Amino acid sequence: MKNFIFTLLFATIIFGCKPKKQEENQKNEKVNEFAIIIHGGAGTILKKNMTPEKEKAYQEKLEEAVRKGHEILKNGGSSIDAVEQTIQIMEESPLFNAGKGAVFTHDGANELDASIMTGHDLNAGAVAGVKNVKSPIALARKIMTNSDHVLLSGKGASEFAKKEGLTLVDSSYFYTEKRFKSLQRAKKKMKIELDHDGKSAFYDSDIKDYKYGTVGCVALDKKGNITAGTSTGGMTNKRWNRIGDSPIIGSGTYANNETCGVSSTGWGEYFIRAQVAHDISALIAYKNLTLAEAAKEVIQKKLTKLGGTGGIIALDKYGNMVFEFNTAGMYRASMDDQGKLNVKIYKE
Amino acid sequence: MKNFIFTLLFATIIFGCKPKKQEENQKNEKVNEFAIIIHGGAGTILKKNMTPEKEKAYQEKLEEAVRKGHEILKNGGSSIDAVEQTIQIMEESPLFNAGKGAVFTHDGANELDASIMTGHDLNAGAVAGVKNVKSPIALARKIMTNSDHVLLSGKGASEFAKKEGLTLVDSSYFYTEKRFKSLQRAKKKMKIELDHDGKSAFYDSDIKDYKYGTVGCVALDKKGNITAGTSTGGMTNKRWNRIGDSPIIGSGTYANNETCGVSSTGWGEYFIRAQVAHDISALIAYKNLTLAEAAKEVIQKKLTKLGGTGGIIALDKYGNMVFEFNTAGMYRASMDDQGKLNVKIYKE
Repeated sequence: MKNFIFTLLFATIIFGCKPKKQEENQKNEKVNEFAIIIHGGAGTILKKNMTPEKEKAYQEKLEEAVRKGHEILKNGGSSIDAVEQTIQIMEESPLFNAGKGAVFTHDGANELDASIMTGHDLNAGAVAGVKNVKSPIALARKIMTNSDHVLLSGKGASEFAKKEGLTLVDSSYFYTEKRFKSLQRAKKKMKIELDHDGKSAFYDSDIKDYKYGTVGCVALDKKGNITAGTSTGGMTNKRWNRIGDSPIIGSGTYANNETCGVSSTGWGEYFIRAQVAHDISALIAYKNLTLAEAAKEVIQKKLTKLGGTGGIIALDKYGNMVFEFNTAGMYRASMDDQGKLNVKIYKE
Repeated sequence: MKNFIFTLLFATIIFGCKPKKQEENQKNEKVNEFAIIIHGGAGTILKKNMTPEKEKAYQEKLEEAVRKGHEILKNGGSSIDAVEQTIQIMEESPLFNAGKGAVFTHDGANELDASIMTGHDLNAGAVAGVKNVKSPIALARKIMTNSDHVLLSGKGASEFAKKEGLTLVDSSYFYTEKRFKSLQRAKKKMKIELDHDGKSAFYDSDIKDYKYGTVGCVALDKKGNITAGTSTGGMTNKRWNRIGDSPIIGSGTYANNETCGVSSTGWGEYFIRAQVAHDISALIAYKNLTLAEAAKEVIQKKLTKLGGTGGIIALDKYGNMVFEFNTAGMYRASMDDQGKLNVKIYKE
């Protein structure tokens, strides 16, 4: 009995006194004068499914993109320029589900979404379901700065892009064999599943991941201004002009100089329902959580509890940076004001 | 000198001791077992511009709508049924800018938006830019319950509506002479202004108000479930397939059983940027504000500071209800569990 009590006491001390883990030692004091963080999508990204060549291609493109924005910030440029130009490098690469590499809809088209928000004035621009604009993030920026609106869609958004002199492209620009094959596979799978139990292929991880290539960027410039941006081709085999979270301010993208900037990637519907991007900001503003604590709370607890999968990148006003995801991997990179580069793909 | 000191002392006592106004005496304890609150739009609604007949027409329709939902709740029905059927009464009336009374776009069409969210499961459905669906709120509900998606748009949303067997109507259903004349007036005004200084008619209060007829409803049922919904025809003379805040979860509509439900009406772009609906919920959840305090903080301080105009209706888990707006008026009504009816148009 005595031994039992001792053991119990010992266990209580050991486990009960375990110091509360500091969330990645983040501090609410300036750690970076400027900084940049990017993602190229989250999903079931496993090393066993990768070739060394593919891995290298992703790492190199992520590095090229993050270095582009870093150079702008280092030279005193604005976070909005850094975000736009960094995202454009990923939009122009077929590796990511945005711009050039956009996935196909059920009807064999490409419908592109993007959004951008600037934290100093809480201004925002977004576009949903545009088909012929080379850089959706550039269009989102034009909507923010040159229109009275936040969100334009479809043909109307294309008209606005034309009026603004943005580069329009033929739909063949977005054709990549890889994405087209994904659509055929998804359709086949969905047909089989519909024949069986009426459920969509939505829940098949192979196909689910085809919608996870969204790209995003958050930057803090030397003036203390935070900008966040996101660009995507949406979901393979999507129907009914579905709009995901990427063009939705507060879900896919949010920025506020008083708190942080966030860009999301994942199963969009859950990111809308969980209000992911704005909720992280609200937890910092109203509950005094650190960026890391807030991101963990929203992704690992709230989003996961709803059943949502994906991740976010975020950067706060102090220059702290966070990658947070509940999937096997997320293409991601960051650079701080000392030029320290961080490029990763898999979970640590 | 002595007198001066006395006067100063007296003034200090009088003004300094003025008791802090309790925010409409709201309490964080159950005040209503069930309750319902609605709006029919906010804007420059002044008594001097109203005829007694018009005033009566609005009051009667608001009462009819709120009584419909109240009856459902009283009989143990769900808040989702109450919200849908209450909003449908307003959608079918030409008085409001939703459904039947929707305003015209620049191209002379009617593009309807709506959204709905249920607080017990944080599920949501929304539709943007649909042209031929009689009840956009019914479509939003079907998207929530019968699809894997949250937000569908345009032609795709119409296809989904058809598949679900919802009532489709010809565009002539939405023709009302009043709204068509508003479009002509707005176009004329915009042309004049463009000729003069390149600014849009957006800033003219006469025309600005044409987009303020959005309708919304929030209900709490006997099971403690909160549902919020919003339906609108958007903005007179809108272009480029603009999407406002009404179909945006977190901006136009939000519901969470842990906090509250909110439906917005006003200048949509600002409601998106200020994250109005979710921000009210976040202030309750993370800062322990009462519903009235949270609504006042977001509408009178944050939204107003950004330059946005409009208002919200909200209802918390205790059954407290709030109308909050920074315009001259808001068509609004509520009913508590005792059947106490409240119908108002102008600022108090």
